[in-house]
Amino acid sequence: MALSTPSTSFAELSSATRVEIDRALASYCQFGPKCPVPLAEAIRYSLLAPGKRLRPLLCLWGAEAVGGVSKAAMPAACAVEMIHAYSLIHDDLPAMDDDDLRRGRPTCHKVYGEAVAILAGDALQALAFEIVARDLRPAHVAARCAALLAHAAGPCALVGGQADDLDPDRAATAGALESIHARKTGAMLSVSLQLGAVTAQCASDAEAALADYGRHLGLAFQIVDDLLDVSGDAATVGKRVGKDESRGKLTFPGVWGIAESRRRAAELIDAAIGAIEPLGATAQPLEALARYVLERDR
Amino acid sequence: MALSTPSTSFAELSSATRVEIDRALASYCQFGPKCPVPLAEAIRYSLLAPGKRLRPLLCLWGAEAVGGVSKAAMPAACAVEMIHAYSLIHDDLPAMDDDDLRRGRPTCHKVYGEAVAILAGDALQALAFEIVARDLRPAHVAARCAALLAHAAGPCALVGGQADDLDPDRAATAGALESIHARKTGAMLSVSLQLGAVTAQCASDAEAALADYGRHLGLAFQIVDDLLDVSGDAATVGKRVGKDESRGKLTFPGVWGIAESRRRAAELIDAAIGAIEPLGATAQPLEALARYVLERDR
Repeated sequence: MALSTPSTSFAELSSATRVEIDRALASYCQFGPKCPVPLAEAIRYSLLAPGKRLRPLLCLWGAEAVGGVSKAAMPAACAVEMIHAYSLIHDDLPAMDDDDLRRGRPTCHKVYGEAVAILAGDALQALAFEIVARDLRPAHVAARCAALLAHAAGPCALVGGQADDLDPDRAATAGALESIHARKTGAMLSVSLQLGAVTAQCASDAEAALADYGRHLGLAFQIVDDLLDVSGDAATVGKRVGKDESRGKLTFPGVWGIAESRRRAAELIDAAIGAIEPLGATAQPLEALARYVLERDR
Repeated sequence: MALSTPSTSFAELSSATRVEIDRALASYCQFGPKCPVPLAEAIRYSLLAPGKRLRPLLCLWGAEAVGGVSKAAMPAACAVEMIHAYSLIHDDLPAMDDDDLRRGRPTCHKVYGEAVAILAGDALQALAFEIVARDLRPAHVAARCAALLAHAAGPCALVGGQADDLDPDRAATAGALESIHARKTGAMLSVSLQLGAVTAQCASDAEAALADYGRHLGLAFQIVDDLLDVSGDAATVGKRVGKDESRGKLTFPGVWGIAESRRRAAELIDAAIGAIEPLGATAQPLEALARYVLERDR
C-alpha cells in the first residue's frame, strides 16, 4: 500500500476549506420572513451540523485538480452537501431507517417532528437546485451541473439505491450490494467531482480521470462505512453502530469478511490515487482525501 | 361578470393538449433497470393519475399567449406537474395531512407504503429539475427556468406554505391564510406561467401580464378549493371533503362566509382575465382556464 503520507495531511489540507464551505452553507440559509421559523431551524440544524464535508471538498478539490478555481465551484459544493443533508434527514425517518442519532446528535425528526423533517429535506433538495441554476456561471455550466446533479439525486441513482436498500427481498449478493451502493453513495460522490470538473470547464480526459477516481473512492468509502459499523463505537462514528447486523442488512464484511473487506478497500484507494496521478500536483488534496477515507477505519 | 363564454370552452381547448402532456409525462417515466420496480410504479401511479393538468396547461398556454411555441415549453410543463405530484404525495403522508384518497384513488403511501411514497416524491422532485436543466434550450433558458422552479418549490414558497399550513399556532386571519396559499398554491401556478414566458423569450411587459394573471388566478383557485371542501361531494372532488372544518383548519369560507368567498373568487377571476387582455387572441385559452377555475364550484 502507498500509505506513506502522514494521516494528518487531510486534516491540515481540509480545515481552512471546511471553514469556507461552512460559511457559504450558512449564507445560503438566511431565509426571509416567508420561510417559517421551525422549517428554517430544521434546515440549519441538519445542514450546518458538524461534518467532514467530503462531498463539497471533492467538488472544490476536483475543480482545482483540473485547473479550475474553487471559488467558482462553491455554489456546486454547497448544493452537493444540501442533497446529502436532505437524503440523511429522509433516510433517518421512522418509515425508512428509523434512526435517532446522526453525526452524534438527535436526528432532525426527533427534534422537529416528522412533518417538519420531511419538509426540511424537501426544501434542501429544492435549494440545492436553486443555487446551482442561479449562481454558477456561465449559463451552460449552470444548466449542465443542475442536470448532472438531478440525475445523481434521482430514481436511477440516490433515491433508487435507497429504495433497493430498504427492500427486504433484494438479492443478498456482493453484486447487488455494489449496485445499491454505487447508486446510494457512489453517484453523489462522483457527481461532486464531476460538478467541480464542469465548473472548471476542463478537458474531457481530465474529467474522465476524476470520474475513475470517484468510482473507486465511492466503493472504498462504503466498504469502510460498513467496517465502521462492525468495529467502530458510536462516539467515534457519530451514529448507532451494529445496526446493519441487527437488521439483517447486507454489508461488505458480511459478504467478504473483515480482513478481505479491508484488503479490497485499500486496493480501491490505490486505484483511485492511480487514476488522478496524471493530473499532477494539483490533485494532491484528492490523494490525501482518498487516504483519509481508508484511515477512518484505523 | 364577464362570464359569457360557455363553460365547455376549457374542456374543448384542453382535451387535445392534455393528451400531449400525458404522453410526454409517460415518456419521462421510462426508467432503466437502475430504478427499482416499486419506486418506478409509485412514481407512475401518482404522476400519471388522471388529473386536470392545470399547471402544465398554464405553462404551455402561457408560452403561446406571449408568442411562444408550446412544444418548446413541454419539458417545463412536465416539470411543474412533477413538482405538483411530489408535493401531493408528501402532503398526503400520515405525518402530514394523513389522507387516504387523492384524485379518487388511494394515496401513494396507502398503495406502496410510506417509505416508497417518500422516495417517489423525492425522485419526482429530482426528475423535474433534470428535465428542465437538460431538455430546455438554449442553456440560459434552462438555467433560469430551473432557478425559478426551484425557488417556487423551496422553503420560501411551496414547502414554506405547507409548513405554515400544518402549524397549529399560526394566526387565524385572512392575511395569514392568503400568505399560506400564495406560497403553497400560488407560487407553483405563477411559476408555471413564468416558465412558459421564459421558454418563449418574450418581452418583460408580456411576462408581467402573465404574472398578474397568475397572482389573481392563484388566490381564486384556493378560495374555490376551500368552497369545494365545504359544498362539494367526495365523488366529484376526488378527495375527502369536509376535512378542513373537522381539523379546525383555517379556510376562506370560514373567514369570509360562503357568499362573500364566491364573490371575491369571481372578482379575482375578472381581474385575472383583465390582466391578459392586452395579449390578445393568443391568450384566449388562459381566459377559458380562468373561467373554468371559477366554474369548478358550480
